[in-house]
Amino acid sequence: LDNSPPRGTRDLLPDQVSRREEVIAGLVGCYERFGFRRVETPAIEDIARLAGDQGGENEKLIYRVLKRGLDPVIAEATPVDELVDLGLRFDLTVPLTRFYANNQGQLPSPFRAMQIGPVWRAERPQKGRYRQFTQCDIDTIGETSVLAESELLEATLTALAAMGVRPVEVRLNDRRLLAAVAGTAGVGGEATGAYFVTLDKLDKIGWEGVKSELAGRGYGQAVAAETERIVGLLASADDPAALLDRAADLLPSLDAGVLEGLRQTAASLTRLDGESELDFSWSLDPTVVRGMGYYTGQIFEIAHAEAAGSVAGGGRYDGLVGRSLGREVPACGISIGFERVIDLAEVGRKDLGVAVLYGSGEPIEEVLAAARRLRATGRPAGLVPRRSNTGAQLGELAAEGYSAFVTVDSGSTSEERSLTPEGSS
Amino acid sequence: LDNSPPRGTRDLLPDQVSRREEVIAGLVGCYERFGFRRVETPAIEDIARLAGDQGGENEKLIYRVLKRGLDPVIAEATPVDELVDLGLRFDLTVPLTRFYANNQGQLPSPFRAMQIGPVWRAERPQKGRYRQFTQCDIDTIGETSVLAESELLEATLTALAAMGVRPVEVRLNDRRLLAAVAGTAGVGGEATGAYFVTLDKLDKIGWEGVKSELAGRGYGQAVAAETERIVGLLASADDPAALLDRAADLLPSLDAGVLEGLRQTAASLTRLDGESELDFSWSLDPTVVRGMGYYTGQIFEIAHAEAAGSVAGGGRYDGLVGRSLGREVPACGISIGFERVIDLAEVGRKDLGVAVLYGSGEPIEEVLAAARRLRATGRPAGLVPRRSNTGAQLGELAAEGYSAFVTVDSGSTSEERSLTPEGSS
Repeated sequence: LDNSPPRGTRDLLPDQVSRREEVIAGLVGCYERFGFRRVETPAIEDIARLAGDQGGENEKLIYRVLKRGLDPVIAEATPVDELVDLGLRFDLTVPLTRFYANNQGQLPSPFRAMQIGPVWRAERPQKGRYRQFTQCDIDTIGETSVLAESELLEATLTALAAMGVRPVEVRLNDRRLLAAVAGTAGVGGEATGAYFVTLDKLDKIGWEGVKSELAGRGYGQAVAAETERIVGLLASADDPAALLDRAADLLPSLDAGVLEGLRQTAASLTRLDGESELDFSWSLDPTVVRGMGYYTGQIFEIAHAEAAGSVAGGGRYDGLVGRSLGREVPACGISIGFERVIDLAEVGRKDLGVAVLYGSGEPIEEVLAAARRLRATGRPAGLVPRRSNTGAQLGELAAEGYSAFVTVDSGSTSEERSLTPEGSS
Repeated sequence: LDNSPPRGTRDLLPDQVSRREEVIAGLVGCYERFGFRRVETPAIEDIARLAGDQGGENEKLIYRVLKRGLDPVIAEATPVDELVDLGLRFDLTVPLTRFYANNQGQLPSPFRAMQIGPVWRAERPQKGRYRQFTQCDIDTIGETSVLAESELLEATLTALAAMGVRPVEVRLNDRRLLAAVAGTAGVGGEATGAYFVTLDKLDKIGWEGVKSELAGRGYGQAVAAETERIVGLLASADDPAALLDRAADLLPSLDAGVLEGLRQTAASLTRLDGESELDFSWSLDPTVVRGMGYYTGQIFEIAHAEAAGSVAGGGRYDGLVGRSLGREVPACGISIGFERVIDLAEVGRKDLGVAVLYGSGEPIEEVLAAARRLRATGRPAGLVPRRSNTGAQLGELAAEGYSAFVTVDSGSTSEERSLTPEGSS
């Protein structure tokens, strides 16, 4: 009998759930102190919204849900699309924009949203990647200034530090600066999207790879050369101020407001670094691109030496809420890579408290009463049928997470004794 | 633009999520003190398992998930079943039995499981019922004696009381006692299932309704009359002991172990009532049936005067794990009607802490630093752009949940002042 969960998904055992719940509690507690408030949307959304809004690569990965009440046999050749009306969400951003549009009359402005929940992607299963996984997002909707960006970064750095995920490195960029690089290199309009997708691979494939891929996509050799030159000049600036000065010189189409915004976020990060005990470094990095197509302003990633990729990332997406709401509302968000953070977080093992060992002849109400008296002090107490090999059993209970035990014998409860992971005390 | 969530589902606003999370934390904290440990399974399960295991009425309500990689057009005469490989879980019991069978080598025996999570049923939407809703189950797997039943009831009564859901009323019965009633009335084998379904409606339709439905289903008039007579005699017993004596007299096919088990659970409830400060009453009730077909032993319901139906219910289902595992394992569980308990729970409003009001000209890093200093004391502090009509704004902030405010002006932060729901202090 195969009792595995569906391919690409997993069961979570008690110690795993404990660890995840403790990390979630830590993140939530931290984000709440910044004024972010949890909201929840259903796991299912209309398929048209999931597929249409900004799906791109994600669209192929949607779990599609069949309409209810279909006949048991398809009568005539039918497009699959006609059989489907819902899908499982693949991220928390698309549902959030719908949520905001649906409920904005009951929400303050700006609204700080926190979302922690599962999303589903039918990706090819591979080690450490699952088809159902948890995302943890905070978003500020309705804030035009980079106060949103600065605060999202501070909240995330604080939350990661609280979980022991440090030191971390913040890399900051702006999609409009990238667009100006593209424009100066001779790329504009529709062509910018694919150009960004290639540039996003620089980390992995280097400049030779990027230039060859740009050529393969039909961008001229001059585009690739000019891109490498400009990005190289920006990246080699001695400090953030010098980088911004160079950007102003090299990118005539770049709006001064973009540079001013980056200066402000940089000032906030500098101040935070000086005043807090957070353990982070930061830089302006013209090679940060971010995958999603919807970003319109500053973008950022937070990395940790022991995690592949980034542990958090996000940016401004001013156009997205408007597609649902019908009027423009500025928005900015950051997502913690929850499944990566779980592995890095410093979380203690849960103490299961006192194991109450009882013999098979003991009256049930006596056994329950013994555990009740222990619990009255606020500690956990778990009932365990006593085995004949007590030594081995105590070792197992210690390994399971109990820190002490008592025995119930002929209605009386023994003194409490402590358990250590090596065995009985 | 329609931005509603899918039909029958809902968005949860910040105050709703706060309330739900506080109730969940209360239930989890209580159950953990009893040694129950959270496990999680994926939202999706193989469709064959969902539809086949014990689906019954629930099977029609399953959200079915399309296979990935289907051709864009489905050929004529294709059975819908061939398009589907997964479904959304409709309860937490079917996934738990799979989980236990899949992971039992890593779990203690008996294993106390706690599950809190969403389930999906494509029911006709009606007031107060949703197609995605939360279930909260605890189950003890591997315990033969009614220690499991007694402990599940105690844990649930304790958890409900901790949430302010009291007084409550426990009604206890046993499926084997019901089967003996059926047998004595002349019903056996396959016919028992439908007989129980009808008997389960006694609360709603009364004896006249039950008798007429039994007749309509083809049971003879003698069956209906004898059922009413036996159940009436049992229900009119003066106390639980008298009821058990009467059952022994009236139901010759009833195993003495069933009565002994009920005596033990009754003794545990009596002892609990005497020793704890829980506010509950209890009774043996021969009219408790429970809907699910898989119960094999004691069954129970917990009711509260202000809730329609029960606030919790469950029972023993010794056969169900074996269907997945291939060998018999005793099991018993109880489920809290989470969505009902949410309405009854006594939960305070969340304090959002200090609203930090700032003017538009204030440097961003100064505003962030002011909030940071407040948060350093451990309190929440939320940034709010100051409006010109401060009086109205303070009233709104109080209504939103802030308990105090400061203003940031030219880099300096004012003294903290308290906010009351009526307006500023």
